[in-house]
Amino acid sequence: MGWGDLGAFGEPSKETPNLDQMAAEGMLFLDFYTANPLCSPSRAALLTGRLPVRNGFYTTNAHARNAYTPQDIVGGIQDSELLLPELLKKAGYINKIIGKWHLGHRPQFHPLKHGFDEWFGSPNCHFGPYDNREHPNIPVYRDWEMIGRYYEDFKIDLKTGEANLTQLYLQEALDFISKQQASQQPFFLYWAIDATHAPVYASKQFLGTSQRGLYGDAVREIDDSIGRILRHLQQLGISENTFVFFTSDNGAALISAPKQGGSNGPFLCGKQTTFEGGMREPAIAWWPGHIPAGGVSHQLGNVMDLFSTSLSLAGLQPPSDRQIDGIDLLPVILQGKLIDRPIFYYRGNEMMAVRVGLYKAHYWTWSNSWEEYGKGIDFCPGQNVSGVTTHTQEEHTHLPLLFHLGRDPGEKFPLSFASEEYQRVMERIAGVVQQHKDTLVPGEPQLNVCDKAVMNWSPPGCEKLGKCLKVPESDPGKCSWPH
Amino acid sequence: MGWGDLGAFGEPSKETPNLDQMAAEGMLFLDFYTANPLCSPSRAALLTGRLPVRNGFYTTNAHARNAYTPQDIVGGIQDSELLLPELLKKAGYINKIIGKWHLGHRPQFHPLKHGFDEWFGSPNCHFGPYDNREHPNIPVYRDWEMIGRYYEDFKIDLKTGEANLTQLYLQEALDFISKQQASQQPFFLYWAIDATHAPVYASKQFLGTSQRGLYGDAVREIDDSIGRILRHLQQLGISENTFVFFTSDNGAALISAPKQGGSNGPFLCGKQTTFEGGMREPAIAWWPGHIPAGGVSHQLGNVMDLFSTSLSLAGLQPPSDRQIDGIDLLPVILQGKLIDRPIFYYRGNEMMAVRVGLYKAHYWTWSNSWEEYGKGIDFCPGQNVSGVTTHTQEEHTHLPLLFHLGRDPGEKFPLSFASEEYQRVMERIAGVVQQHKDTLVPGEPQLNVCDKAVMNWSPPGCEKLGKCLKVPESDPGKCSWPH
Repeated sequence: MGWGDLGAFGEPSKETPNLDQMAAEGMLFLDFYTANPLCSPSRAALLTGRLPVRNGFYTTNAHARNAYTPQDIVGGIQDSELLLPELLKKAGYINKIIGKWHLGHRPQFHPLKHGFDEWFGSPNCHFGPYDNREHPNIPVYRDWEMIGRYYEDFKIDLKTGEANLTQLYLQEALDFISKQQASQQPFFLYWAIDATHAPVYASKQFLGTSQRGLYGDAVREIDDSIGRILRHLQQLGISENTFVFFTSDNGAALISAPKQGGSNGPFLCGKQTTFEGGMREPAIAWWPGHIPAGGVSHQLGNVMDLFSTSLSLAGLQPPSDRQIDGIDLLPVILQGKLIDRPIFYYRGNEMMAVRVGLYKAHYWTWSNSWEEYGKGIDFCPGQNVSGVTTHTQEEHTHLPLLFHLGRDPGEKFPLSFASEEYQRVMERIAGVVQQHKDTLVPGEPQLNVCDKAVMNWSPPGCEKLGKCLKVPESDPGKCSWPH
Repeated sequence: MGWGDLGAFGEPSKETPNLDQMAAEGMLFLDFYTANPLCSPSRAALLTGRLPVRNGFYTTNAHARNAYTPQDIVGGIQDSELLLPELLKKAGYINKIIGKWHLGHRPQFHPLKHGFDEWFGSPNCHFGPYDNREHPNIPVYRDWEMIGRYYEDFKIDLKTGEANLTQLYLQEALDFISKQQASQQPFFLYWAIDATHAPVYASKQFLGTSQRGLYGDAVREIDDSIGRILRHLQQLGISENTFVFFTSDNGAALISAPKQGGSNGPFLCGKQTTFEGGMREPAIAWWPGHIPAGGVSHQLGNVMDLFSTSLSLAGLQPPSDRQIDGIDLLPVILQGKLIDRPIFYYRGNEMMAVRVGLYKAHYWTWSNSWEEYGKGIDFCPGQNVSGVTTHTQEEHTHLPLLFHLGRDPGEKFPLSFASEEYQRVMERIAGVVQQHKDTLVPGEPQLNVCDKAVMNWSPPGCEKLGKCLKVPESDPGKCSWPH
């Protein structure tokens, strides 16, 4: 989803009454970011509170390349990383993930090995359908075992766009919440649905209901589902005891626009890029009786903050033996404070940009390569800012491109290098960057090696279903990350 | 102002609490348009309920050129046109214009000759300062007489951006409302402030208060002023008897961005163009006790509808001896109805595009000429949609470019000519266009002839102030309209 996909954030069809209501009852974050313009690293950052470059969700195969966890990825989340659910266990929380995991699908990376008690969902995106020869179809797990595969047991009709997955995930969420309320146990629910990722789908009841086409139908279904979850909490009488946060893992994928791609509002470019459209996210906090209704915050926030904030809510301290990038947002949410902190925009192994206050400095610019662009792959369709949305990797380390995101949210008008404002601001930013780089210890990159032998051929449980596939011979090699 | 300049429409700084509150208490229009991407024609359309091509506010000097009423314009609003205040007089209304008139500044075009009872403001934009030799400074009128000139008696400090004009116009509005309430007379107030037009200004108390720079300061001052006006109506106990509508006369001028230009949200290009960014406007209706709070309408609306709607509110019929393009929006506003009607996008003498439902067909595309563009004048900075934001006037009459504004509000992905959808939709649109063109009787163009002798050298009242300037010899000629 993109920043501009919700009515509360200015989507011109205004079709998200439940999320808009959630914002009206809670706090809207207008300057909230993901930790990476791509799914897997962003989710790894959310659950570890650490930048992907620290937790290993990046590649060094080539400079500044976006990498994630496709079926043939060998790496995944390391045991040495401490995930939010692992820590919440100490406070008696029952942890469930519903939906996409995306932190590796080999047995050692299984979510139930990393703190979750329950899982209903898939390890990878719902790409497909596959022929089960070159690629297996993506499995859907219940806890330790796969219970079927996408396109086979969990239908997705690419022609009509119909799939009831969001409804399955919704029902699972409602049931889990009911169960936890009945047993009076504190819970952490990570509701990580696949939608609105391409190939976009929606349930029959939502198909054709949006002005925005199939993508809008999917947004409406998510909106409706979140409304149901919030009402469920209220009906169970636990809404004042349950903190809910809504956000997305990267900007709208404009490469899929307009039929399968969303809106990043007034921001530049989309998913895959370190421009605002790639990383600024819709974000809403909701906690009736605690968060003053109708709040609007300009706190620079990040999905990694959900790690620290959740720990704080549970009365726990973040680990002290490692660098945590997330901050506790409770003073912001409950007392309206503003905490000064930078936002780092990484692409793979490179810090491309940094935001300090209202200023954003680009140390590197790149949309995608001329070669990819020539194939019709465009992360910035209809947008072209000379010297900014470049198709070669442009280094600006010695003279970063500086934008004022208040006057120029679209990153279209770099400040003059000669201006007093540029000099003054860059002095401050340079210090922040220096400090960041001086203390940065990159983790071991997990997204370098691919091997078709590690694909989801024979996940645990496949034998019960008669759905085990033959594992091909191992042939590890460098993954190719063109973006 | 642009569609994206208000918090309720998704401006990322969300600095318009009063207008957002107005929307929350009233009805937000997401698909509301101006009648022209430029000021004078748009205002002429608002006050006559007729397209500029009918009321004469266009030029035939060249094809599809934007024209307005600079100081040397010879034409203006014709006596044959019936303006809203003229008609409202029949129902006993007292009519006042505060701010910019812009329908011609020669004596026969004076607002008090066209139905207004009072005027405080200027006939032209606040461009300047001038040397009073080549150009006189723009006068400010009280009713029939000028009471000073911009930059001389009404200060505008271009260096600091400070000017208290919006405060003067606000106080004038509050006083007028008080007076009318005291005398129990129905009133029509046309509060047509100059801000946020460039050169942008704000009062001292608002300077530096916005994240968005001086433009944002001006928006904040407008927001604050409207909050004061609405509260004044409430305090006088007449809010349930007063219909208020907020909108703008054209999209944000991106040529002035980022320091003096606003936001058109997710839409393409800005002022001067017939893309959505040039003509889709923020719009809010407010009438406590009548309009259900928190309403959101997708009615295709137009500033010309304010003519018809206002007449309806006053119990009057629109003139039957001429074509009126505005429609009565009361069924939309009070009963939530949707009225099927097209939106025509004109540039000068050419219908460039038409919107029917969610579809928009471009019959001509043009941003500006290569010559102007080469000078650095860019109506679409950072945006470039191949074959759409063209720098030559491209005719598409036989195969219009078709966009679905729900799936693609940014007009970036034309539908395939070969698609069934294109064929079906264009058949419908072609009928609407044919009917429009068959019945169109253009008015006499008023914006063709310019003459420096008609400038504001010696407006009535200048002698009292000792501010009469020598009128140069008449030398009428064709106005030059490069855009």
